Amino acid sequence: MSEKLQKLNSLLAEIADVNNAMALLGWDQQTYMPKGGAEARGNQLATLSRIAHQKFIEPEIGALLADLEKEFAGAEPDGDVARLLEVTRHDYDRKIRVPADFVAEFALTASRAFEAWVKARAAADFALFRPHLEKVVELNRRYIGFFPPADHPYDILLDQYERGMKTAEVQAIFADLRPRQVELLKEIIARPQGDDSFLHVPFDEQQQWDFGVKVITAFGYDWDRGRQDRSTHPFTTNFSINDVRITTRFEANHPVASLFSTMHEAGHALYEQGSSQSFERTPLAGGASLAVHESQSRLWENLVGRSLPFWEHFYPEYRKRFPAALGQVDLRTFYRAINRVEPSLIRVNADEATYNLHVMLRLELEIGMIEGNIAVNDLPGIWNAKMEEYLGVTPPNDALGVLQDVHWSGGSLGYFATYTLGNLISAQLWEKIHRDIPDLDEQLRRGSFAALLAWLRENIHCHGRKFTPQELVLRVTGSKIDPAPYLRYLRGKYSDIYGLQSQ
Amino acid sequence: MSEKLQKLNSLLAEIADVNNAMALLGWDQQTYMPKGGAEARGNQLATLSRIAHQKFIEPEIGALLADLEKEFAGAEPDGDVARLLEVTRHDYDRKIRVPADFVAEFALTASRAFEAWVKARAAADFALFRPHLEKVVELNRRYIGFFPPADHPYDILLDQYERGMKTAEVQAIFADLRPRQVELLKEIIARPQGDDSFLHVPFDEQQQWDFGVKVITAFGYDWDRGRQDRSTHPFTTNFSINDVRITTRFEANHPVASLFSTMHEAGHALYEQGSSQSFERTPLAGGASLAVHESQSRLWENLVGRSLPFWEHFYPEYRKRFPAALGQVDLRTFYRAINRVEPSLIRVNADEATYNLHVMLRLELEIGMIEGNIAVNDLPGIWNAKMEEYLGVTPPNDALGVLQDVHWSGGSLGYFATYTLGNLISAQLWEKIHRDIPDLDEQLRRGSFAALLAWLRENIHCHGRKFTPQELVLRVTGSKIDPAPYLRYLRGKYSDIYGLQSQ
Repeated sequence: MSEKLQKLNSLLAEIADVNNAMALLGWDQQTYMPKGGAEARGNQLATLSRIAHQKFIEPEIGALLADLEKEFAGAEPDGDVARLLEVTRHDYDRKIRVPADFVAEFALTASRAFEAWVKARAAADFALFRPHLEKVVELNRRYIGFFPPADHPYDILLDQYERGMKTAEVQAIFADLRPRQVELLKEIIARPQGDDSFLHVPFDEQQQWDFGVKVITAFGYDWDRGRQDRSTHPFTTNFSINDVRITTRFEANHPVASLFSTMHEAGHALYEQGSSQSFERTPLAGGASLAVHESQSRLWENLVGRSLPFWEHFYPEYRKRFPAALGQVDLRTFYRAINRVEPSLIRVNADEATYNLHVMLRLELEIGMIEGNIAVNDLPGIWNAKMEEYLGVTPPNDALGVLQDVHWSGGSLGYFATYTLGNLISAQLWEKIHRDIPDLDEQLRRGSFAALLAWLRENIHCHGRKFTPQELVLRVTGSKIDPAPYLRYLRGKYSDIYGLQSQ
Repeated sequence: MSEKLQKLNSLLAEIADVNNAMALLGWDQQTYMPKGGAEARGNQLATLSRIAHQKFIEPEIGALLADLEKEFAGAEPDGDVARLLEVTRHDYDRKIRVPADFVAEFALTASRAFEAWVKARAAADFALFRPHLEKVVELNRRYIGFFPPADHPYDILLDQYERGMKTAEVQAIFADLRPRQVELLKEIIARPQGDDSFLHVPFDEQQQWDFGVKVITAFGYDWDRGRQDRSTHPFTTNFSINDVRITTRFEANHPVASLFSTMHEAGHALYEQGSSQSFERTPLAGGASLAVHESQSRLWENLVGRSLPFWEHFYPEYRKRFPAALGQVDLRTFYRAINRVEPSLIRVNADEATYNLHVMLRLELEIGMIEGNIAVNDLPGIWNAKMEEYLGVTPPNDALGVLQDVHWSGGSLGYFATYTLGNLISAQLWEKIHRDIPDLDEQLRRGSFAALLAWLRENIHCHGRKFTPQELVLRVTGSKIDPAPYLRYLRGKYSDIYGLQSQ
C-alpha cells in the first residue's frame, strides 16, 4: 500500500476511535447514566468532539489528501481507495471551515439541551426546553455562516446527513408526494374503520422483549456484535462494525409499538453490521446517508414487519404469548389493526399513510427557523396549528406535540426529511428485491429472511458510505429517489385492507 | 484567579475529560460490551490513552507548572493550589519520561490481555493467558527503564498507586505483620470450628441484590450519582465525582460474598463521591492512593459489615429474606459463620485473618517477575507451592489459583500490596473514629451511619488526592501506616469468636 495512504488511514483510524468513544458516551447517556453524571458527560463530549475535529483538520491530513488525490487520479472511480479519498475530501472540506471551539460549544450545548429536553418532555413544559432550542438554532445558523452561500442555507445542514442532496430536490420530491399522499389518506378515512382496541391493553413486558428478540434474531441481527437496552427514545448506535447496539422502550397503552420499534432499530443495526469489515476505523464505515439508513429500518419494520406474509408465520406464536389480549383475535383482524390508518399525534407511532405528513411539518418548521421566519417561542403554537391543518388533530400538550422528538435536543436540524426519503427508498428497493427474489413472500411466510438479508448485504450494506444516497439508489434500482413505488405500495396495501377503488 | 492557573486548570480539565471517557470505555468493557466489540475497544482505549498522555506532556503544561510554582512559592503548603501544583508536578515528571506510543501500546496490550484473561479463567487454562502476561511483564519492565534507577525497580511501579512509598517501606511493614498474623492464624485454627454450611446454599439473587442496595443506601451511597451493575470481577469506577459506579457478582455457592463485595465497592464509591466538588476535572479528584482507597472499602466491608453491632440491626431482616437458609440460624451463629477463619483459595473471599497472606504471596511473585527471578511460565507452579506453604491449601486448577485476579490482565503490577496496607489503615482509622465517636457501636446497632460517614467525609474523603498516603494517615491518626491496630482489632474480634487466650 502507498505509504501516504497508510499514514492517512492511521490518522483517520484514530479519529474514528475518538468518534466511537463519543458514541459510547452518548449511548450511556441515554441508557444507564445516573442524573448526576450529566454535567461531566457534557464536558467529556465537548472535549472529545473538539479533539476529533482538531485531529481531522490538521494540515497533515489536507496535505496527504492532496497528494493521494494526485497519486490515485487514475484509480477505478468506484473502488474503495477512490471512494475513501472522495468521502474524506467531502468531510475535510466541511470540517476545515468550522473552528474546533465551535464544535466543542456545539457538543456541550447539545448535551445540556438533551438533559433539558428529557425534563421538559416529562413535565410537558416547552418553556424548560425553549432557551436550549434557541441556542441550538442559533448555533446551526452560525454553522451555516462558516460556509459560502448555497442555493438555500438549509442545504448546508441537509448535506451533513444526505451527501450531495439539495433542499430544492427534497422539496420537489415532497411536492410530488404530498397531494397524492393526502388524497390516499382521504380515501382511506372515508372507509369504515376496524377495531384495534385489543392492541391498547397491557401486554407482559418480558414476553414483548422475548418476542422482539426472537424476531430480530430471525432477521439476522448478530448478538455477538450487539445488544439491546432500554431508553426514553429508541435508537441505534455503534462503536465498531462489530459492536452495533439498539434500544427499545415499552409503551403501556401501545404495546405493539415496542415490537415495531425493535424491528426498526434492528433494520438500522443490520445495515451497520453488514458494512464491509475492511471499512472498520475508516470514514467509509456506516451508512450512505440517513435516508438510506432509514430505508433499511423502515423496510424491516413496515415492508416486512407489517406485512401479511410475516404475520402468517409469526402470529400463532405472538397470539400465544398474549392470550388475554389476542386469544379471540384472528390473523386478518390483527393484520388490519396493526395497519390501521388514523391521523395521530406521535410520529414514531404513525401509520404508513400519515407518517410522511409528520415529517413534512417538521421540515417546514426547520426551514422556517433557519430562514428566520419562525421564532422558537412560536413553535408550539405553529406546531399545533399545522397538526390540525395536515392531520386534523391537535396535541393536548407539548409532550405529545413539539417536544416528542429527541433530534433538536441533540443539536440536529436538517435530519427529519431523511425519514420520508427513507420510506420512499424502501419501496423502491422492495420492488427491485421482488424482481430479484420472486418467491420473497413465500420465504417470509416461512419466517425465512436469509435471502432478503443477503440481497441487502450485497446491494446496500457492504458499500458503507462509498456512494452518495442518490448514486446508490440509482445504482441499485435504476432510478433516483422517486415517490411512485411508495405510493404504489401504499395503495396496494390499503386497497386490500380498506377496500379502496383501484386507480 | 491567576490567568496562568486558569489556563493550567483548563488544560488539566480536558485531560480529565479524556481519562473519564476512558474509564467509561473500561466500565462498558466489563459490564455490557458484546464480545464482538473487544478489538475495537482496545483500539479506542489505546488512542485515548495516547491522546491523554500527549496532552499531559505538552511543553505548555511544563512551562505553566514552572511559572506557577514560582508564583505560588509562598502559598499555604496544605492549600488546594499548592497541592494541585505538587500533584500535577508528580504526574508530569512521571509522564514526561514515557513516550506516547508506549502508552498506547500498553493500553492495547492490556485490553487484549483482559479479553484473554476472561477466556483463560473461564477455561481454567493458564496457557491462554501466558503470552499476554509475558507482554504485560515486559512492558512493565520497559516502563521502569524510562526512569532513573530507584532504590528498587519495583518502587517505580508502586509509586503509581502509592505516591512516595518505597518497596523497602512496604517490605518492612509486611515483615512486622507477617509473623504475628501467622501466629494468630495458628491459634485460631487450633480452636474448634463452627458450622457455616447454611451460607453455602442458594440464596435468591433478587433478594440478595435488594438487600445489598438497602445496606449501601443506609451507608450513604448516592444513587443519583451512581449505579450498580454486574461484572465478572466487581469494581468501582467513576467518570466524575457525580457519576461513581459499582459492580457486583453472584456466586452460587457463596451467596454472602456478593453482599460483602457490594459493601466493599460502596466503600470505594463513598470515597469518590465525597471528594470536594471543587476538585472535579482536576488531578486532585480521586483518592489519596489505592491503599487509602482500600482502607475505605475494607472499613465498610469488614469493620462495619462483619461486625456484631451491624448485624444486630440488619440480621432480622436478612434472615427474613432467606428463610430456607437462615430460618433456624440465630444471630450469634450467623456472626460466627461470616467471620469463620479458614485458609482458602480465593483472595477476595478470604477472611480477615488470612487475607494478607494472599497479598504477601502476590507481592513476592510480582517483585520476582520484575527482578527477573520468576518467569511467567513458572508462575502457576510457584503460586501453588506458595499457597501450600503460606495457607496449607493447593488450588485444584488455575482459575482458582493464578488466574483468579483481574489486575495483571489490566497491565497492573505494583497494585496488590495496597490491599494489605488498606487493611492496616482501616484499623488505624477505626481506633481513631472510636475515640472521636464514642457511641459508634450504639449507632451501628441502630443502623445509623451518618456520623461515621460525616467523619470520613471530613477527615479523608474531602481531601481527594491532596496528601500522600503516609501524610494523610499521619495527619489523621498521628502515626504512619502501622500494623499494630489491625492486629489488635483481629485479636479482639477472634478472641471473642474463637475463645483465644488474651495476650
